[in-house]
Amino acid sequence: MKIEQYRIDQHNERLLGKHNNQFIFAKEQLGEQGIDANAVVKTLQAFQVAIPSWALGTGGTRFGRFSGAGEPGSLVEKIEDVGILHALNRSSGSISLHIPWDIPSDANAMIDLATSLDLKFDAVNSNTFQDQKNQELSYKYGSLSHVDPKVRKQAVEHNIEVIKYGKELGSKALSIWLSDGSCFPGQSNFVRSFQNTLESLQEIYAALPDDWKVFVEYKAYEPNFYSTVIQDWGSSLLFCQKLGPKADVLVDLGHHLPNANIEQIVATLMMEGRLAGFHFNDSKYGDDDLTVGSIRPYMLFLIFVELVEGMKRAGKGSDGFAWMIDASHNVKDPLEDLMQSVEAILLSYAQALILDSKKLEIARQNNDVVLAQQLLQNAFRTDVRPLVREAMLHSGGSLDPIGLFRDLKIRENLISERGTVTVATGL
Amino acid sequence: MKIEQYRIDQHNERLLGKHNNQFIFAKEQLGEQGIDANAVVKTLQAFQVAIPSWALGTGGTRFGRFSGAGEPGSLVEKIEDVGILHALNRSSGSISLHIPWDIPSDANAMIDLATSLDLKFDAVNSNTFQDQKNQELSYKYGSLSHVDPKVRKQAVEHNIEVIKYGKELGSKALSIWLSDGSCFPGQSNFVRSFQNTLESLQEIYAALPDDWKVFVEYKAYEPNFYSTVIQDWGSSLLFCQKLGPKADVLVDLGHHLPNANIEQIVATLMMEGRLAGFHFNDSKYGDDDLTVGSIRPYMLFLIFVELVEGMKRAGKGSDGFAWMIDASHNVKDPLEDLMQSVEAILLSYAQALILDSKKLEIARQNNDVVLAQQLLQNAFRTDVRPLVREAMLHSGGSLDPIGLFRDLKIRENLISERGTVTVATGL
Amino acid sequence: MKIEQYRIDQHNERLLGKHNNQFIFAKEQLGEQGIDANAVVKTLQAFQVAIPSWALGTGGTRFGRFSGAGEPGSLVEKIEDVGILHALNRSSGSISLHIPWDIPSDANAMIDLATSLDLKFDAVNSNTFQDQKNQELSYKYGSLSHVDPKVRKQAVEHNIEVIKYGKELGSKALSIWLSDGSCFPGQSNFVRSFQNTLESLQEIYAALPDDWKVFVEYKAYEPNFYSTVIQDWGSSLLFCQKLGPKADVLVDLGHHLPNANIEQIVATLMMEGRLAGFHFNDSKYGDDDLTVGSIRPYMLFLIFVELVEGMKRAGKGSDGFAWMIDASHNVKDPLEDLMQSVEAILLSYAQALILDSKKLEIARQNNDVVLAQQLLQNAFRTDVRPLVREAMLHSGGSLDPIGLFRDLKIRENLISERGTVTVATGL
Amino acid sequence: MKIEQYRIDQHNERLLGKHNNQFIFAKEQLGEQGIDANAVVKTLQAFQVAIPSWALGTGGTRFGRFSGAGEPGSLVEKIEDVGILHALNRSSGSISLHIPWDIPSDANAMIDLATSLDLKFDAVNSNTFQDQKNQELSYKYGSLSHVDPKVRKQAVEHNIEVIKYGKELGSKALSIWLSDGSCFPGQSNFVRSFQNTLESLQEIYAALPDDWKVFVEYKAYEPNFYSTVIQDWGSSLLFCQKLGPKADVLVDLGHHLPNANIEQIVATLMMEGRLAGFHFNDSKYGDDDLTVGSIRPYMLFLIFVELVEGMKRAGKGSDGFAWMIDASHNVKDPLEDLMQSVEAILLSYAQALILDSKKLEIARQNNDVVLAQQLLQNAFRTDVRPLVREAMLHSGGSLDPIGLFRDLKIRENLISERGTVTVATGL
Repeated sequence: MKIEQYRIDQHNERLLGKHNNQFIFAKEQLGEQGIDANAVVKTLQAFQVAIPSWALGTGGTRFGRFSGAGEPGSLVEKIEDVGILHALNRSSGSISLHIPWDIPSDANAMIDLATSLDLKFDAVNSNTFQDQKNQELSYKYGSLSHVDPKVRKQAVEHNIEVIKYGKELGSKALSIWLSDGSCFPGQSNFVRSFQNTLESLQEIYAALPDDWKVFVEYKAYEPNFYSTVIQDWGSSLLFCQKLGPKADVLVDLGHHLPNANIEQIVATLMMEGRLAGFHFNDSKYGDDDLTVGSIRPYMLFLIFVELVEGMKRAGKGSDGFAWMIDASHNVKDPLEDLMQSVEAILLSYAQALILDSKKLEIARQNNDVVLAQQLLQNAFRTDVRPLVREAMLHSGGSLDPIGLFRDLKIRENLISERGTVTVATGL
Repeated sequence: MKIEQYRIDQHNERLLGKHNNQFIFAKEQLGEQGIDANAVVKTLQAFQVAIPSWALGTGGTRFGRFSGAGEPGSLVEKIEDVGILHALNRSSGSISLHIPWDIPSDANAMIDLATSLDLKFDAVNSNTFQDQKNQELSYKYGSLSHVDPKVRKQAVEHNIEVIKYGKELGSKALSIWLSDGSCFPGQSNFVRSFQNTLESLQEIYAALPDDWKVFVEYKAYEPNFYSTVIQDWGSSLLFCQKLGPKADVLVDLGHHLPNANIEQIVATLMMEGRLAGFHFNDSKYGDDDLTVGSIRPYMLFLIFVELVEGMKRAGKGSDGFAWMIDASHNVKDPLEDLMQSVEAILLSYAQALILDSKKLEIARQNNDVVLAQQLLQNAFRTDVRPLVREAMLHSGGSLDPIGLFRDLKIRENLISERGTVTVATGL
Repeated sequence: MKIEQYRIDQHNERLLGKHNNQFIFAKEQLGEQGIDANAVVKTLQAFQVAIPSWALGTGGTRFGRFSGAGEPGSLVEKIEDVGILHALNRSSGSISLHIPWDIPSDANAMIDLATSLDLKFDAVNSNTFQDQKNQELSYKYGSLSHVDPKVRKQAVEHNIEVIKYGKELGSKALSIWLSDGSCFPGQSNFVRSFQNTLESLQEIYAALPDDWKVFVEYKAYEPNFYSTVIQDWGSSLLFCQKLGPKADVLVDLGHHLPNANIEQIVATLMMEGRLAGFHFNDSKYGDDDLTVGSIRPYMLFLIFVELVEGMKRAGKGSDGFAWMIDASHNVKDPLEDLMQSVEAILLSYAQALILDSKKLEIARQNNDVVLAQQLLQNAFRTDVRPLVREAMLHSGGSLDPIGLFRDLKIRENLISERGTVTVATGL
Repeated sequence: MKIEQYRIDQHNERLLGKHNNQFIFAKEQLGEQGIDANAVVKTLQAFQVAIPSWALGTGGTRFGRFSGAGEPGSLVEKIEDVGILHALNRSSGSISLHIPWDIPSDANAMIDLATSLDLKFDAVNSNTFQDQKNQELSYKYGSLSHVDPKVRKQAVEHNIEVIKYGKELGSKALSIWLSDGSCFPGQSNFVRSFQNTLESLQEIYAALPDDWKVFVEYKAYEPNFYSTVIQDWGSSLLFCQKLGPKADVLVDLGHHLPNANIEQIVATLMMEGRLAGFHFNDSKYGDDDLTVGSIRPYMLFLIFVELVEGMKRAGKGSDGFAWMIDASHNVKDPLEDLMQSVEAILLSYAQALILDSKKLEIARQNNDVVLAQQLLQNAFRTDVRPLVREAMLHSGGSLDPIGLFRDLKIRENLISERGTVTVATGL
């Protein structure tokens, strides 16, 4: 199923009067503060966030999964789903594959399909946190860090195979989330686990094409509940330092201990030139994988403030980083959930872009804490929805993606196409 | 020092054109959604949040205090400071006294002064977490829960004396925050501590005038670092149930364990008819006592959503509860900090008031989680600053309290009046 | 497979010399402190902790499950597994069934089997957190709290059916863990969810036999990641108060927010006469369901200190409460893991039993915090393993359950009996 | 006041029979496991933990301080207090000075006094988290990271002065805990703060004598409640990498986010050769500064397991690291509290020393998680108090330091010497 452009245009037409009114007002208001709304809109248009192939089906917990209907049952259908998303919001222009859940048996066909939907292939993801059918050795006790060199070898080879798939598709990065760790004190030797992992990563690193990157993700806990080999950004950075310049740190918002100041971590990693990008989601307790911006929108904004500043400092655009949504949709339609996530990201980005950073620096120089807070809050409290809508509109997307998704009964169509019992691969 | 009304009016005049433009736009937008902006403004005008007498000086931590200048050195000066605040924002119309830091030796004079500034006396607060000079028995090991009945008696009598002061001033509630607890496992017998405390509270309860309430606050930890006698809302409620209908639970936003869902606690207490009110502040780690809304504004909004719904259900207005700011101003001018807090509270309240609760209930009935989230976010993402400003304007306050405070060089004036070395009593 | 007593006796014989030496030393040492080791041993012998039917297979996480081999594939095999455990440690004399995972189609046969293994049937557990095949209505959006009365009715009837199964087996309690809640702000109306749940529970309560109890468990989060209907002990107690004297609060050690003082919660619930019992496990981050005592053994001891004191106060023995292990065995043999859990529980209980509570009360009266801590630590630092072994020995169990389990190659036997691909029902 | 050796000997004599009995039993038991108790005792004797000069008075919180009596009012008296401690436990053979609270005006006299008490001077500590009287520029908004180079310069010079004092006393390290950070989002520029701090540290580093080290401590929060410049071990390590080989990371057990796996941090820092040492204490919520081992003794043991392994790997003894107690004694006699802390440290060390690390490595190689846990627990559950007592006895200390302290009425003597109103400098 594909959304024809005229349907989007028709829908927009009905909303245009109201939108224009709102956008003009926002533009005026921002103009009085010396901010060029059109420039912000252009920057927003350039922002693209990847959709992972495992995020198109209903997620679950260890207590079970309540599947939805009309889920994509194949890689083709997953790419089509991302195509629908991107047609609606024009900001989800790439897909991030997970191997082996979504092995592209016919790479050219996949590229053609993606291209027809204006999609690219983002970082490819390996999986050594599960055993696959017919897998020779088990990852029950680890993969890249395993005490047994044969298991490590198997895991390294899997990663190298993932690179191979990625090369065929035009990806430029391998993303590694390592669930290795331990559930009990004593279970593993921290130092040996680190060194085993380092050796494994070095072998993978050696297999990286010249123009590729490897992203090293960290996570405080889960599915291991006592320790993880790469428990925090400090550990990730240590690995990257030892690996070389092609290794960067990937931040997942849900992978921290309670109350962590993530925006400062982001700033530090950018200062070191070691931020790979983000896995966006939100959480209240742990790695809850909730819709981006649904719990702590102000923190998301603060992160974007650091990102905007860091990009400026590094002279990079948003295309210099890997952005991906990594949420689980336990009680929502996955496509609607993703639209809410993308919107939340763009809103935070817009708020960060309208922040008066010059005044902010002056306030900081003066230790005028009250003013510094006020400047941030002014940006955050501004209704930037018209800017995000304008960006989508300019790029050919919908002024109201979820509204149109529902009007066009897209899920109902997908169900009639695919049936109610398909279950997307993934968690 | 007192702010003359004409100064406020002059200042507003300069801002009025811009404000009217913004308010009219907001009103139109809300009107299209069926919301009466003027009604919201009226409801906002009626909202008054108390300022505690200890919040007018610079706060500190156990590592020290960096005092500001021009702090109020007497109760008279503290009341005058609240008068300044209230003149500027017209939403801080009461002061909450702390005994023995601010004993009103001449109650009538204090009432006259307060009345002249349009202020009332809110709940009075007792203090048994510190030893005062010449105090007979120490609270080092507890007060209302102490193993020694003589210490408990002293603490009970102090609370009864606080009621006496409150009666003279026209207060209608005694607020008890009990720091009692233990620093080490084994130090105290949980059950005896509870029962000692209950007996003490019953004696205090018996001394309450008929039209008074007693507020029982809970706190998870600090200054005791292993246990506290009233550790959570469940403990507070248990005490209140045993005490009787005049005892209600007071919620301080910083007194919870990490990740607590405070809005649900609020809903439950309102359901039980046992919510006394709030001590507003914000925090990232513990009882950080930061400016309201500076860290987790969305959570503050969610709390107000419950408050608005609970008030509706109970047929009560915002004057049926005790609202107070309880923040510490370590690095900000206390008055500016309080203005930021009051503004954040009003913004959250306004956002909750414009929430389309009927649509929300329908979405909930349909388990339309996407729509339910969208409705909340629509309210939160709306720029409600014009509504709050309009409310202040209508009540005779300033369109930009902090701006005017700085324009009028109020702190500089206070410094020249009071000097740089006064230190306000408090923490 | 069943362990013959003579094998246990043979194994013990080899260890007896060493054990006697250790026990005699421990007895002497305790005797000098006025503690009767034999009395402690007797009290330990009387302690029985239930094994849930779902804990005999390998557990998993949302990221996957690494199954072990030789897992029980039927209720009969599960009962046999508990029989093995109980034969080895004589402290696991009951099984707690989970419906519908383990429906006892032939109750009499199950009772006969259990009796032959010296086992009883503990509380029965309902499940409304998953959908079963052919289930009419889904629990995706809740069960007892669901907005739709038809779903609530289905969930109530399921619970009543569970009571029916329990009655056939001789159980005396229904244990309800309700996963109901919400994943996103706005998704549910807290007050209506509470009231719907209360109504549902009242219907279930009405169906309880006179000599039954209903256990109301609370949990802060997971699988719902924004709110849960019964989020903490305060909520559980509120439900129990409204239900009546047959409803008590069940505590699961992993169901709290970070840093919670659980031992104080236990003390408060016992004070109110509302502690149903425990789901034992351990955790570092959330509901990690790790082996009891593997992470925070001192906290477990502190809980037992409260339990021992509360039992004394109430004039009850350990058979007056429901004790159960609720752990997940992701990387260990389930039976070995359960043996480690039972041992940890008994050790903590033994430590609490040798605590000099009279001296402790005197130290508390004197606010001698140093001595109070020392008394607790003295008990905790004492090597009480000989006492636990003596208790097992006296009851006919093994001096070294895991050692014997390995010597007898019990798992290998189970694998050859059951094969490597059976997967036990459960999580 | 000084404790004569004969008093210790007399006291020991009374306890010796019982102790010998216990030690012989422990020795036999360990011997059967192939562990040489005497070797463990010798290793324990060599362990010395520094006492900070600020830990000899009663601590407080931001809510107040309940001073004890007989506190040391001068540096001389503080050194004497450490002398008492060391005489009793022979394991507290050094003192760590804090400047400017304890400026040694006459260094030679201090050295003579210390030498007479068998004490050395450990790392010296700077303080830029408070303003001192007559200080030119304030640290209200930071010190080494301050936006104003003049403030940074003042802070750098203070640190260089501290080194000077340390050189006079024979110290070999400067310990820097930097409270710099921010209380509100926006207040500070993370990157500039980092870089300002780095420059400041580089200047201090340049002033270090060749045989000195600088210890860089991290802390997640407090007294800044939004961000700290050195928030975690990763930040500390980054600074140390940029500074050079004389800079190492100092770990304070209370300076982490909830649930942090500190033992893994320790292992990683030792792997990198960057662990400076420890500030020992314990906590349940935050930086509670409670007695070592009073809350999480098993975690302390796990940390010592890593320390023992790391020392072995590095071929270093315990004298290759800086150990210090950094606790606050709000409700205990400071000297008794310190004795409890030292004892807890030695017990954990002893438990780690008797761990069968060879078997553990084999279990790890076999992924025998059950056995690995059992090995750790065997060590932890062993009563090692006789070993610690034997070590103290051999070194000339007391078999029961707190008992003797009370028998000799040392505090009462100090009170009669010093009076009841002295207040030790510190927090």
